[in-house]
Formats: sequence, structure tokens, C-alpha cells
Amino acid sequence: MDLEAYCLQTATAARRASSALATLPTEVKDRWLAASADALLENVDRIIQANSLDLAAAAGYGLTDAAIDRLVLNQSGIEAIAQSLREIAALRDPVGQSIEGWVRPNGLEIRKVRVPLGVVFFIYESRPNVTVDAAAICVKSGNAVILRGGKEAMHSSKVLVDIITEVGSQSGIPAGAVQLVSTTDRSAVGQFLKMNELIDVAIPRGGKGLIERVMQEARMPVIKHYDGNCHVYVDASADLEMAVKIVVNSKCQRLGVCNTCESLLVHRSVATTILPAIATALTKAGIELRGDRATCSLIPNAVLGTEQDWSTEYLGPIISICVVESLDAAIEHINRYGSHHTDAIVTENLQAARQFQLAVDSSAVMVNASTRFNDGGQFGLGAEIGISTDKFHARGPCGLSELTTYKYLVTGSGQVRQ
Amino acid sequence: MDLEAYCLQTATAARRASSALATLPTEVKDRWLAASADALLENVDRIIQANSLDLAAAAGYGLTDAAIDRLVLNQSGIEAIAQSLREIAALRDPVGQSIEGWVRPNGLEIRKVRVPLGVVFFIYESRPNVTVDAAAICVKSGNAVILRGGKEAMHSSKVLVDIITEVGSQSGIPAGAVQLVSTTDRSAVGQFLKMNELIDVAIPRGGKGLIERVMQEARMPVIKHYDGNCHVYVDASADLEMAVKIVVNSKCQRLGVCNTCESLLVHRSVATTILPAIATALTKAGIELRGDRATCSLIPNAVLGTEQDWSTEYLGPIISICVVESLDAAIEHINRYGSHHTDAIVTENLQAARQFQLAVDSSAVMVNASTRFNDGGQFGLGAEIGISTDKFHARGPCGLSELTTYKYLVTGSGQVRQ
Repeated sequence: MDLEAYCLQTATAARRASSALATLPTEVKDRWLAASADALLENVDRIIQANSLDLAAAAGYGLTDAAIDRLVLNQSGIEAIAQSLREIAALRDPVGQSIEGWVRPNGLEIRKVRVPLGVVFFIYESRPNVTVDAAAICVKSGNAVILRGGKEAMHSSKVLVDIITEVGSQSGIPAGAVQLVSTTDRSAVGQFLKMNELIDVAIPRGGKGLIERVMQEARMPVIKHYDGNCHVYVDASADLEMAVKIVVNSKCQRLGVCNTCESLLVHRSVATTILPAIATALTKAGIELRGDRATCSLIPNAVLGTEQDWSTEYLGPIISICVVESLDAAIEHINRYGSHHTDAIVTENLQAARQFQLAVDSSAVMVNASTRFNDGGQFGLGAEIGISTDKFHARGPCGLSELTTYKYLVTGSGQVRQ
Repeated sequence: MDLEAYCLQTATAARRASSALATLPTEVKDRWLAASADALLENVDRIIQANSLDLAAAAGYGLTDAAIDRLVLNQSGIEAIAQSLREIAALRDPVGQSIEGWVRPNGLEIRKVRVPLGVVFFIYESRPNVTVDAAAICVKSGNAVILRGGKEAMHSSKVLVDIITEVGSQSGIPAGAVQLVSTTDRSAVGQFLKMNELIDVAIPRGGKGLIERVMQEARMPVIKHYDGNCHVYVDASADLEMAVKIVVNSKCQRLGVCNTCESLLVHRSVATTILPAIATALTKAGIELRGDRATCSLIPNAVLGTEQDWSTEYLGPIISICVVESLDAAIEHINRYGSHHTDAIVTENLQAARQFQLAVDSSAVMVNASTRFNDGGQFGLGAEIGISTDKFHARGPCGLSELTTYKYLVTGSGQVRQ
């Protein structure tokens, strides 16, 4: 079968499965999730064996040690995947959830209820645990999913999908609900992205190059997971100790992720009191400081940054620092240079907190909390398939609800329009 | 100024206005809406004069009598526009509305609140009242809007926008909040559709050709208002009188709109009892019947339809009719040939009603009610900017809420991630 025919067959099977999934009872889906968890644990050897093929090929793909580390599946890793399936089973099913409901003067009852989006095309990096998580999140929310994982994890992903789909066929999950793209041919992605009649949403996760390609080629809506140039703004009334704690946590708790702080703004009135304490703590944590002139005049080890630095997502041990004249200047800086992802203010002033949350145009706006909390798990949303940097449809953490749309159920007793 | 520079300037002004609009108090917006209503009534002569220029040119544009009729602005038409502004002023402001809120175990307070989308690019047909309605809906929901109306209504739209923006500058509405594209050059649309950095959503309303063009060229999300091939399914247990009433209303109450019934399905067990009564009523109303073989064998004046008929949105005095073997067959037919817009069942059977609402994949699924109720006004949503046939972001009537997204406001007392 040629590539185009293969992709069409895959997407058609997913579309067909999605119709059945849309009305599948929650208990069937949850039973499958639990049985899949059991099956993964029963097949540890089979999984580790497949994983060893990926690990053997990893060096040939030029993977870094960190990337190889994320690729490894061992007993505890498989247990974590199984645990994640059980947690998704325990989440409330969004399908059928009543969002709003009311009765019209003519007696018509109107209910707005959640329904699945349909078919999800998920393109992601080489982490085998993501394969199972994404399959579980999509099916739990009533969607069929076409999984296109990195080639470096192909053997691992294949055995995982084989196991959960074997369980699925015994549990009443429709065939085609979860499909792993079996070819590593990159043009398969382009084929799927054309099929807007069969696929309802594309979700790319990975490097900017991939996301830009998907945005350009996709004929269906895309939920993007783009960059995070997150700010912490230390306000005039900030508590020193809290400011240090929040900046250090936002920057250093984990370096390479999207909700990490990349830019620090400090109100001029506390630049001489609070900024040195923060700079010392960051320096101690191994962070390079790139400041504006005001910062550099106060902090000896800060190097002079450029305009470019204010918009950069370093994903590493560097932070940019600017001294700002006012709360408004901080807000303006964030809305101009930021990426509308996650931004925080440290303040004891109620008006400043309210104004910051009102005016900063980001998916999450924090008051006196680390930027690192913008995360589906930390928000208590349960599993997430990504963090959307879009405004349309879903913004911020994308959990089960964000993979649904709604329909209106209207019930009457013979009403007609006058 | 060349076209590209003009479009860029317009979109930039809209983007700038949208930042100010996002935090504009509701009372400022409502005051503007009320003052605009007053100003329209004070400027009736000026509006009618501008409108007469459009009417004089209408024949030259080849407008039909019906289209010219929709173009006319007289005293009562202007009063209706003013009244619509007052109704939009009375609607609840969606901006800042708390969708959900909860407290995490670590004490973090999380609130999901509605915020405007930003800048709306609205492309619409030649109806001057739509110009004012769209401006009001967008600004009330905190968005800036770029209005691209049909050239046939250009003089009327221009004077209307002039009046409401004059009032706007006195009422504290930021400049650029409402802009009418002043050129009739068709390539201006293409220019705007490229500006995904400045425009957040494109909303085309009009013919299929326009919508397809927008879908192809837009680099930003599009809310489409596509076709409506709506069905009424008369179930085995339907009440005869109610079935006749609902089918006739769904088909005949207004012919040329998207929520009009285009296809009738009748369960075989009532084909001999109910179908003839419906056919007689439809024929009396001047509707042509195109049936499958079973229908034609029962209804002498039905002509034999083709596969093509089952998927056609006639927008005129024709209906297609099929006899189906079962509820499931009806659902399958609707999901296959329908356009996922509005579909209704007439039934006295609770299980049939529930199954139909569960399985039919349409923006509104009606039980014992006319398809004509799928409408923002009829749903009680207030003014609408269109009816989305998309699943993503907004489905069905698009009122104020559908022009918003959300952000998470997270408030803590120094929490950091472990």
C-alpha cells in the first residue's frame, strides 16, 4: 500500500471509531484503562525488550544522554505509566457533562453538553510514556487518536500501543480508536494534515520547527504548544523573602520547560533593596544574569543584555532582568516581549495584584506564586495532552475538557416558531 | 497609501484598541451603546441620504429585489437598529465572568475567567444593520473589530460607523475599536487574512465561495457559518398532529435560512399513516417533494430524488423525503448526509429521544421542536454574530461569550513548586 492510501485508511478507521467512541459508556472506557494498566505490568519483559531496540539505535540517531534517559523504560517507568492510566480512569468523564442549561419562556428546555471533538492527530517527541498518556486522554474524552511519535521511540511505542489495543478489542473499545503511525516517513505527517474531513484537530508537541510546519500545512484547527517567555515582576510592595523564593523557584526548579521564568522585572523603588538579594540567590544557583543598564549598575556580575534578550526563551541557566518604572511599565513590557504563557507578580498590594491580573494577557497570571504552577497536574485538572499557547478554543493546560466541544440539546413538546 | 500599508495600519490600530478594550469597564461600553442608539435616531436624515446612494447604485450591481429590500434603511429600520443596540447594552458583559474556580491543596486559588479574543475580522453581506450589530457585539465582548461589508451597502455602512465612532470617541471607546474597511478592493480581504499576528479570528458570513476563500487564505482561526442541511425525523411513536406541525414549521416558516429543514425522514411503521398528512400539508404550502422509492409509492405527487438530494441544502421550496427502517437508520442517514447543523426528532418515546440526542452529531439536536429554533435569539443568548458550523471553539449560535477566550488567574501567598 502506498503512503497516501495508508494514511487515508488510518484516518478513515479513526473517523469510524470516533462515532462509536462518542457514545461509549464511561465504564467501558474506564475498564479499558484499568485493564491496560494491568496488561502493561504483565508485559514488562516484552516492553523492556522492545525498548532495548530503541536504546540500541539511540546513539545512531544522535540522541543526547538526556534524551536517551527519557527513552528508557524499566520496571518503575512502566509502573508509572500504569499508574497514570489508573489516574485517568479515576477522572470524571467530560462527555455528556452539562455546561449550562435553561428553560425558554415558550417552555423549550435547552442544555449545552460536552461532546468529543472527534479525531485527534497527535505529533510528539520521543517519549514512550507520552504514547500511552495521549491514547488514554483522547479515548477517555471520547476521541479517536492517531499517534505520530518520534522514530527514536518507535519500537517502544509500538509494543505499548499493541498491548493497549489488544486489551481494547477485548474491552469493547472500537477498532481504530488508538492507532500508531507505523511508518517513519516524514511525509506521512503532511498527508494527515490535509485530511480536514477526517481529522478534527492536530496537536503538535515538540520543537518550533515541527510546530511551524504543522501550522503551515494543517487544514484542520491546531492546538499549539509554543514557547514560554515567562516573567516574574517584583512590585514596589513585594515582600523580599517571598520575592527571592518565587523568582528562584520560577527560574531554577526546572530549566528546560515552558513555564520556567526567563525574564525578571523589578520595580525601581525596590531595585536597590530586593534585586541584589535575588541576584545573589540566582547566581548561587548557577544562573547567568543579563540585565538592562539599571540592573548592571546595581549588580556587578550582570552582563548587559540586548533587546533580543527580553524576548528570548532561554530554556537554560540564563535570566534577563529589567528595572521598570511602574506597574504599568511592567505590564506593558510583559505584553510586548512576553509570549502570553505565564507571568507572575510578587506584591503585597491588592490594587497592584488586581491590575496585573486584569491587564496581563497570558494564559495564566499568577499573584505571589511560582510560574511553574501553570500545569494541568498542578491546577488539579488531571492528565494533560499539552499546554496551549493559543487563545482559540483552549488556552493553557489541555486536559480532558479541552478535547471536547459541545452541542445543544433542545427538548420541547411541539413548539414551533411564530 | 497603498493597499498593504492601509490594511496594516488598520489592523495595527485594531490591535492597539483591543488592549484598551480588554480592560474597559462595562459601563463605558454600555454607555456608548446607548449613546449610539440615540445618535442613530438623531441622524435619521443623514443615514437615509447615504442609504439612497446605495439604493441608486443597487440596480447597477445587479441586486435582486429581495437584496435591495434588505438594503433599505428607513425610519423604522433605523429604530430597529437602535433598539438592537439597547438590547446588547442590556446583556451581561462576558468579560471577567468566572467560568470555574477552585482552591488547590497547597492553598493556591485558581479562577478561570473570560477575556476577549482580541481583534475580530468580520466579512459579511450587504446588510447595513449587520454593520452596527457586529460592531456592538464585538465591542461589548471587549474585542476590536475590522468590518468588511459588501460594497453594495458601502455608503450606508460608512455613515453608520461614522456615527457610532463619533459617539465612541466621546464615550471613552478607544480609537480603532470599530473600523470599516474603506476600500472595496477585494484583495484587501487577502491582506487582512495574512495578519495572524494582529487579528485573532476571521468570521466570514455569506456565500460558500467567500467562506471557502477565507478558509483557504486565513492564517488565523476562522469561525465558519456554512451550510445547513437540517433534518426532521418522524419516529415510529410520533404524534401525527405534532409531526405535521413541526415539519411544516421547520420547512416553511422561512425558506432561505440555514436552520430550515431540507430533509424529512419517516419511520417505515408510520409511513402510511403520518407521511401522507405531512405531504399534503407541505404540498399545500407550495413545497416540492423529492422522495425515495418508498415515499414515491405512497405519495403520488412526490418525484423520485437522487443521492444528491439527500445532501442538498435547497434554501427554497423543495424538501427531500426518505422512509427509514429504524431510529438507528435515521441517525446514520443524518450523520452521513447532514451538515451537522440542526436536526430534530418527533417522538413520544423517551428512549428514542435520548438515543437521537446522544448519537446525532449536530450543533443542535431537537426533540419535538422546530429546527428553526437554533438561533441565538431563540436560545435566549441575545445578539449573535453568526451560527458556527465548526466544532472547534464555538458551535452553533455565536453570541458574546463565543467571542471570548479565558485566562487562569492564580493567587497564592508565596507558594513554590516542590
